[in-house]
Amino acid sequence: MRDAALAIDLGGTKLLVGLVDPNGRVLARQRIATPPGGPEAVARAIRVLARSLRADAGAAGATISGAGVAVAGPTDHERGVVYHPPNLAGWGRETSFGPLLARELEETVQIENDANAAALGEAWVGAGRGVPDLVYITVSTGIGGGLILGGRLHRGANGTAGEIGHVVVDPDGPQCHCGNRGCLEVFASGTALARQAREAVGRGAPTSLQALAAHPNEITAAAVARAARDGDALAAGLYREAGTRIGVALGNLVALLNPKMIIVGGGVSSAGDLLFHPLRAAMRARVYPRQALEVVVAPAALGEDVGIIGAAALVHLGSADRAAGPT
Amino acid sequence: MRDAALAIDLGGTKLLVGLVDPNGRVLARQRIATPPGGPEAVARAIRVLARSLRADAGAAGATISGAGVAVAGPTDHERGVVYHPPNLAGWGRETSFGPLLARELEETVQIENDANAAALGEAWVGAGRGVPDLVYITVSTGIGGGLILGGRLHRGANGTAGEIGHVVVDPDGPQCHCGNRGCLEVFASGTALARQAREAVGRGAPTSLQALAAHPNEITAAAVARAARDGDALAAGLYREAGTRIGVALGNLVALLNPKMIIVGGGVSSAGDLLFHPLRAAMRARVYPRQALEVVVAPAALGEDVGIIGAAALVHLGSADRAAGPT
Repeated sequence: MRDAALAIDLGGTKLLVGLVDPNGRVLARQRIATPPGGPEAVARAIRVLARSLRADAGAAGATISGAGVAVAGPTDHERGVVYHPPNLAGWGRETSFGPLLARELEETVQIENDANAAALGEAWVGAGRGVPDLVYITVSTGIGGGLILGGRLHRGANGTAGEIGHVVVDPDGPQCHCGNRGCLEVFASGTALARQAREAVGRGAPTSLQALAAHPNEITAAAVARAARDGDALAAGLYREAGTRIGVALGNLVALLNPKMIIVGGGVSSAGDLLFHPLRAAMRARVYPRQALEVVVAPAALGEDVGIIGAAALVHLGSADRAAGPT
Repeated sequence: MRDAALAIDLGGTKLLVGLVDPNGRVLARQRIATPPGGPEAVARAIRVLARSLRADAGAAGATISGAGVAVAGPTDHERGVVYHPPNLAGWGRETSFGPLLARELEETVQIENDANAAALGEAWVGAGRGVPDLVYITVSTGIGGGLILGGRLHRGANGTAGEIGHVVVDPDGPQCHCGNRGCLEVFASGTALARQAREAVGRGAPTSLQALAAHPNEITAAAVARAARDGDALAAGLYREAGTRIGVALGNLVALLNPKMIIVGGGVSSAGDLLFHPLRAAMRARVYPRQALEVVVAPAALGEDVGIIGAAALVHLGSADRAAGPT
């Protein structure tokens, strides 16, 4: 067996540590709740999980060729810094998490924002294998994204490229938590779908979701999808509106970047055609025929493992991050 | 003297042919009205102009290292194809202009869309020299753009990347000639500024432009800029609105691409602060502080020569098109 990467997916609620081989296969994984208490506590927990994974690897004759981390927050890949991750308790404005974890693990460590890492993972061994220009979008609690251009992850001037959730789709739209107005995330994230459904239930709209009126926390994007599939017109309409908003934003991305593929992942995308139909229609209605002809909209392929596979891509692809050949 | 590129800027009204050295200096240029009669007539005119430029170069001891063409229309750089250029009479849906001109000139020929070529030229020896990630936007009769990412021109899946003028800034906005609604170009191009001024004059709005009421063709974007500088509130308001619209669109580009620099060129940009002030304010109001800190908005530096310098960049930078070092 060849070298494996120690691959870490650090989210607001879960911490996943795995071993991933140079072909993107997950050899082993361990999952715990994200430790509260900040970066040091997280680094120690990773060390403990890594120790048992290393023992497994050693028994199988593999060596570890480095560690990669996909983290739910903005990062500076070059310096290994994580900037104020909104959903990680006890993390400050700026944490040198790469160097900290490198000391803890005695390995080289590469840090990347989770959506960027997911884009790289999907381009490496997922839905976008071999595609040099692609846009990855994840529709979940929030909306994030990553860009693979010319076969490489496009990080931008300070690592914050790919913020598809904060593209403005309606300059006069509602306030977003980012401080801006009318961001895509305000209209079409899982949080937005659930909020819109709760509002509809609250004003007594005719929908099967009224059955959950006494339990508003159970009115989630997944519950809305189930209701839509069972024929609920209001629920279907909410997905249609969200898909259309995402399609308009993706149409702008296609006009700008002329990608070969758009990969849609995240929990909300599991609603399938409820989201993909209006998304594709709105996107195609808004781009040049030559651009529309070229672009394929595909569901993400890596599921829950996308974070650790993306983290492993950072290690296995090396500094060039080249997930596909030159255009 | 080292090798020079034969550099061609083919627009709807003018055809410029020049000699450009490997440092981006224009050694000589000749300019004529674009010949009507289609691709063959244009190729023959280029040959005639090139012959006299070659004689000059030969006298100065220079050799020609190839030809580059910046053309006002969509192109396929790899195949040397020009697709239906909207402002070139007698050109069909698809012209193999690269091969045609290569036979005419007996040189290798590289073809590129003019806004992409301009972006490459500005990144090579203009306002963006040494900047690996930049967005170039030209605000003129229409609005176009080009993206330099990781030091290279980003062409996309079929060469149509960079269509900043056809990013939707208002999904319910007016119809654009491209078939879409609410494109940036409908609100903020030179054509749009002139149209808005004519409409204001037509409905009797109080403005010094009323003096041109009998000569609506003289109500141009440049005339609006002059009026604004002379204190006309309505004219200043039109530039403020256009600048704000461009700033909102550029804010979305910054969220997506996190560039280090935005270069603004084209005739309308010569209005200076009338356009740049509202543009910068709207852009900065709409991006993360960390992205806003990083990005500089600069006027284009190459003026009327940007087309031939961009065309020469295609030749001198070679197939890698690398205008700046790796990020």
